[in-house]
Amino acid sequence: MRHDGRQDDELRPVYIETNYIKHAEGSVLISFGDTKVICTASVEDKVPPFLRGSGKGWVTAEYAMLPRATERRNIRESSKGKVAGRTMEIQRLIGRALRAVVDLKALGERTIWIDCDVIQADGGTRTAAITGAFVAMTDAIATVHKQKPFSSFPIKDWLAAVSVGITSENEAVLDLNYIEDADANVDMNIVMTGAGEFVELQGSGEESTFTSHELQAMLHYGEKGINELIDLQQEALAHAKDLLV
Amino acid sequence: MRHDGRQDDELRPVYIETNYIKHAEGSVLISFGDTKVICTASVEDKVPPFLRGSGKGWVTAEYAMLPRATERRNIRESSKGKVAGRTMEIQRLIGRALRAVVDLKALGERTIWIDCDVIQADGGTRTAAITGAFVAMTDAIATVHKQKPFSSFPIKDWLAAVSVGITSENEAVLDLNYIEDADANVDMNIVMTGAGEFVELQGSGEESTFTSHELQAMLHYGEKGINELIDLQQEALAHAKDLLV
Amino acid sequence: MRHDGRQDDELRPVYIETNYIKHAEGSVLISFGDTKVICTASVEDKVPPFLRGSGKGWVTAEYAMLPRATERRNIRESSKGKVAGRTMEIQRLIGRALRAVVDLKALGERTIWIDCDVIQADGGTRTAAITGAFVAMTDAIATVHKQKPFSSFPIKDWLAAVSVGITSENEAVLDLNYIEDADANVDMNIVMTGAGEFVELQGSGEESTFTSHELQAMLHYGEKGINELIDLQQEALAHAKDLLV
Amino acid sequence: MRHDGRQDDELRPVYIETNYIKHAEGSVLISFGDTKVICTASVEDKVPPFLRGSGKGWVTAEYAMLPRATERRNIRESSKGKVAGRTMEIQRLIGRALRAVVDLKALGERTIWIDCDVIQADGGTRTAAITGAFVAMTDAIATVHKQKPFSSFPIKDWLAAVSVGITSENEAVLDLNYIEDADANVDMNIVMTGAGEFVELQGSGEESTFTSHELQAMLHYGEKGINELIDLQQEALAHAKDLLV
Amino acid sequence: MRHDGRQDDELRPVYIETNYIKHAEGSVLISFGDTKVICTASVEDKVPPFLRGSGKGWVTAEYAMLPRATERRNIRESSKGKVAGRTMEIQRLIGRALRAVVDLKALGERTIWIDCDVIQADGGTRTAAITGAFVAMTDAIATVHKQKPFSSFPIKDWLAAVSVGITSENEAVLDLNYIEDADANVDMNIVMTGAGEFVELQGSGEESTFTSHELQAMLHYGEKGINELIDLQQEALAHAKDLLV
Amino acid sequence: MRHDGRQDDELRPVYIETNYIKHAEGSVLISFGDTKVICTASVEDKVPPFLRGSGKGWVTAEYAMLPRATERRNIRESSKGKVAGRTMEIQRLIGRALRAVVDLKALGERTIWIDCDVIQADGGTRTAAITGAFVAMTDAIATVHKQKPFSSFPIKDWLAAVSVGITSENEAVLDLNYIEDADANVDMNIVMTGAGEFVELQGSGEESTFTSHELQAMLHYGEKGINELIDLQQEALAHAKDLLV
Repeated sequence: MRHDGRQDDELRPVYIETNYIKHAEGSVLISFGDTKVICTASVEDKVPPFLRGSGKGWVTAEYAMLPRATERRNIRESSKGKVAGRTMEIQRLIGRALRAVVDLKALGERTIWIDCDVIQADGGTRTAAITGAFVAMTDAIATVHKQKPFSSFPIKDWLAAVSVGITSENEAVLDLNYIEDADANVDMNIVMTGAGEFVELQGSGEESTFTSHELQAMLHYGEKGINELIDLQQEALAHAKDLLV
Repeated sequence: MRHDGRQDDELRPVYIETNYIKHAEGSVLISFGDTKVICTASVEDKVPPFLRGSGKGWVTAEYAMLPRATERRNIRESSKGKVAGRTMEIQRLIGRALRAVVDLKALGERTIWIDCDVIQADGGTRTAAITGAFVAMTDAIATVHKQKPFSSFPIKDWLAAVSVGITSENEAVLDLNYIEDADANVDMNIVMTGAGEFVELQGSGEESTFTSHELQAMLHYGEKGINELIDLQQEALAHAKDLLV
Repeated sequence: MRHDGRQDDELRPVYIETNYIKHAEGSVLISFGDTKVICTASVEDKVPPFLRGSGKGWVTAEYAMLPRATERRNIRESSKGKVAGRTMEIQRLIGRALRAVVDLKALGERTIWIDCDVIQADGGTRTAAITGAFVAMTDAIATVHKQKPFSSFPIKDWLAAVSVGITSENEAVLDLNYIEDADANVDMNIVMTGAGEFVELQGSGEESTFTSHELQAMLHYGEKGINELIDLQQEALAHAKDLLV
Repeated sequence: MRHDGRQDDELRPVYIETNYIKHAEGSVLISFGDTKVICTASVEDKVPPFLRGSGKGWVTAEYAMLPRATERRNIRESSKGKVAGRTMEIQRLIGRALRAVVDLKALGERTIWIDCDVIQADGGTRTAAITGAFVAMTDAIATVHKQKPFSSFPIKDWLAAVSVGITSENEAVLDLNYIEDADANVDMNIVMTGAGEFVELQGSGEESTFTSHELQAMLHYGEKGINELIDLQQEALAHAKDLLV
Repeated sequence: MRHDGRQDDELRPVYIETNYIKHAEGSVLISFGDTKVICTASVEDKVPPFLRGSGKGWVTAEYAMLPRATERRNIRESSKGKVAGRTMEIQRLIGRALRAVVDLKALGERTIWIDCDVIQADGGTRTAAITGAFVAMTDAIATVHKQKPFSSFPIKDWLAAVSVGITSENEAVLDLNYIEDADANVDMNIVMTGAGEFVELQGSGEESTFTSHELQAMLHYGEKGINELIDLQQEALAHAKDLLV
Repeated sequence: MRHDGRQDDELRPVYIETNYIKHAEGSVLISFGDTKVICTASVEDKVPPFLRGSGKGWVTAEYAMLPRATERRNIRESSKGKVAGRTMEIQRLIGRALRAVVDLKALGERTIWIDCDVIQADGGTRTAAITGAFVAMTDAIATVHKQKPFSSFPIKDWLAAVSVGITSENEAVLDLNYIEDADANVDMNIVMTGAGEFVELQGSGEESTFTSHELQAMLHYGEKGINELIDLQQEALAHAKDLLV
């Protein structure tokens, strides 16, 4: 059994609170255990230069942590004057993952800006961010749709993300918290759709390697976790659920 | 009467939720109406170079807004690669204000890092930040005190901040929200102690000026607001209240 | 008596030399005792994006110190790659103060760029900068006016700035030099118009506080100093004096 | 058949030229078809702060492209003043991949700096970089070993990387060149050891998704490619081959 | 005799390999002994703002070193976030030198981007860069000319660069390698045309001075070296030689 | 005759005012016609890392222009966040030139920081800066010498700088002002010692070239100008003149 009493294939308690920030078109506070992330989706009626005149829209994401989201205070990236490599990697991942389920042509020349700000971190911030950002984005697009319906709703499928790993005792586990993550041999993030297809698969041995067999075990747990997360997203988006066929 | 139904000398509803972030030594979520700020206080057992070996401590503050805290999304300062002048002005103000009621000698060679992150903005973010930061700081120092008592508790007095202004109809008002602030002729921030002394006074005509008479009216409302805020701080810090004589 | 022999309510010797830099539309070398600042005003026939098409003009300011303006050499902000918080605070103050007496509508779509460069510092650099910048700006606008008269001269009133403070012996004093400033309990900068109205009031306790009574004493000295400075500005701008009614 | 005549599971011609830069402890020019990367390994007798006194060494990597390595000239990151997110992602990947087969304890308090500079790009630059960097690193460590033998040679296994993908016609292919990559639905980078274990697996749908079946096909081709690359590395490192048991 | 056996007025072996990078309009790998530089010329059909609408073209250059081009690894300028003064000085020199022999009017509104990347350094990198960049630029312009002939070929004369110096034994020498350069009293870079006129002359005493007589000796050797380099350029550009009358 | 009535080999009026800034160990205001530069020399009792423990001192220089030193206002380098290439080139030149006449061993482990700030520009700012900086540096070192004599005075010779050029009418001229400089075919800066030896020679054709004959004419005028400038330096430093044998 895991140090917090969970089964190997068990998620932490997950909550999704919608309409969390009054100014944003879509916003949620999502928690995976003690990991808490504010995700907002802002709709802008223009696109980056490389898409102007293409009729296509764009989805882009930014990610940050409050300085004291972690056990030790981190220096702000604004004070350092540059964005860390880890941050860039995560925000590129969030944007790419969301775009995989958006019909950018149907969206039209609009940009959806996703902001994921971790207010408390306990492992799995990037997967919580993707899972929450999907809800905020869908809510924002549903808001636009209500005012002026799209001919075809631009979101093609549900999308969630979860982490899996191999512990130092060589056990596969689902949804690692910080203590587990720090000690794991292998860390993998999986992003999947409601239809059960992969969007992203990022697995890394941490000064370690993994076998084909361990890979299959992780994929199996990941799929289970994703299905449960999508159920929770569908509850949180009950009012918009019918828009996604 | 004001557009939200308040009297000229009436604060917005103010809430202070302590222990908001589990990792920080002190933390609050403070709201002044729709303005919401997370304030954390982190204790570090070292001081900046100019104080090393002096036996004195330091209090410093950082301030930021989430991109979608405002009506229109703001570009992150980390993306811009530099901290805006307005941000620097506010974080210098918060630090200076808090230091006025801290006995840095009694604190010893420790730094208190204050982080004020605005998650939703509706006017008065800097005064909410100072008022909340005082609570987070006091809670953090009380935590240190509980583990290893100071010979003299390093906080000398209560401290809160509020905004006052002169509207475009030449009325003095207390605790302006965003709509009032955008339209005001004069904007003043007042920081005062529990003993009723001034710590900071910053009044600016916005392409306008103000008379000595208007100054007195604003100071009067400000004092009233400060007293009410300190009452709320004392409730939130009931467990630590006796430490401040 | 003060260490340099002045009365508590006495300014240091103040000199204003106009036409100091041949290229600028307006320029002065102003000295408050040993504090010396070159102020230039440059007129540009365009405005920042947020004012384009509005018919209104803009006044903006920048402030810097030569590295050896001070007792110890300072590292250049260009070498550090960023502008310090103190610098930003001062340049925002100078711009805001000047705009309070400019009719931006009458100015039309022009920007007045103010540059205040401290070549020698001995306390009160920001108040000397504002007082000198007003002269440079007025001279620049008078130059434009001579070539092509404004229907209404865009400067509405005279404007000067002075510092006041409370010493460590609890005395109010006017126009603090560096030694006095370093030792003061309270430091306040006052910007006022020829009509005796406030434009800016910025008072800070330096790890200290101040009473209502001390505030009144400082305001009283400040008003006296401002009046004397405006007399000197009127001498320096004798040729342009009639343009300001 | 592929546009350049290759079979789906066929690598491009791969060449590894060792001792390419005279100053570096290890250096290669590696080419995967028209993709050409200079990889150098520099040995420094100190470690980053977080490892000082630990007895452990470190391996870190940097990656860049010459401006005209690509069809259109890219602006240099030094001119932009910041490193792009894509670059950071790749250099973090290279470093992490190499560390998986290095016994950092056996290396002792040394840092191996890996520099991968793409002089001509035609797809697969990150996999060519990892494959070449492994050779440069091994050569550099063998050089140190010759001068002063390690009690245990710090490299534990061979390591290579290759890309696989799913084309827009839903075919799995090995080692995509630029034209194939730009058109692919799915792009995956695989890093494996001589023992056939995974070190990194990074697969992304490009505005697309992939099935479990497609994943298995890609993994199969990847393993074949890795084995062929490791054969070529062993030829290039013939003189050092016995050091790796 | 010199430490590598050369006569005082003897160049190191010089090789120029054209068409080195497949994407660039012009590219060479040039070596002066162990100094090796990749020079590319990229043609862009637009000009910087200050030339728009003038009918004139532009030539600009960038210069960099791979981190391990030198005996000790250098930190990348992209990591430091700024370009060093030495780099800026060199790239300004390369651009200015090349522009001296280009008829910018005949070039039309095009920019030639020159990139000189030192892959191995052993003294004289800036003179190798200029000499190689001239070949890459001429090749790129000849390529444009072949597709759509210029009414007058925009390159007016041949151009090469070489270093000369005064050793610590007060001998004038031609084309200093790194060991000689580090020890020299005087270092001078000469850029000359095929017609034997000066384009640039930059001589510096290194904590030393030089006489008029020493100057003449250096100029004499420089002219000899330039003539030999231009012969090699003419061989490398045999196919384009007739375009330059 | 020249547009300002000077002979071809005639300097503009040159003035050197010493002790211009009260805080600096050495300071001058130097003017070459309408070009005015404040030069300060600051003495610091430590050296850069590469000289620690060597017993040798260092001389380094920084150069800047006030924004309105020129006909059109320039954006501050601190606002741009980086130092321009032209600025770096000039400050490297100033430092290198001064070091050529300083016995760094005799100076001991001290750094002389030179700051040259152009307050009004009309051509020749870098030569005025070097000429003024030599005076400020000598005065600063003489001040140190008075307090605690050096066994050997660290300045070995006098040093001045002047510009020469070839006009568009192919005339050699001395000390070009801005109008002449903008129109010249060739621009050369010469730094020489009191003994008549060269320290720096930097000549550039501006989209032009120059002959050996023109070079000799420029060197001839340069030597005349340098001699006159050194006479003026000796007057300004009358009190310290005997220290330089």
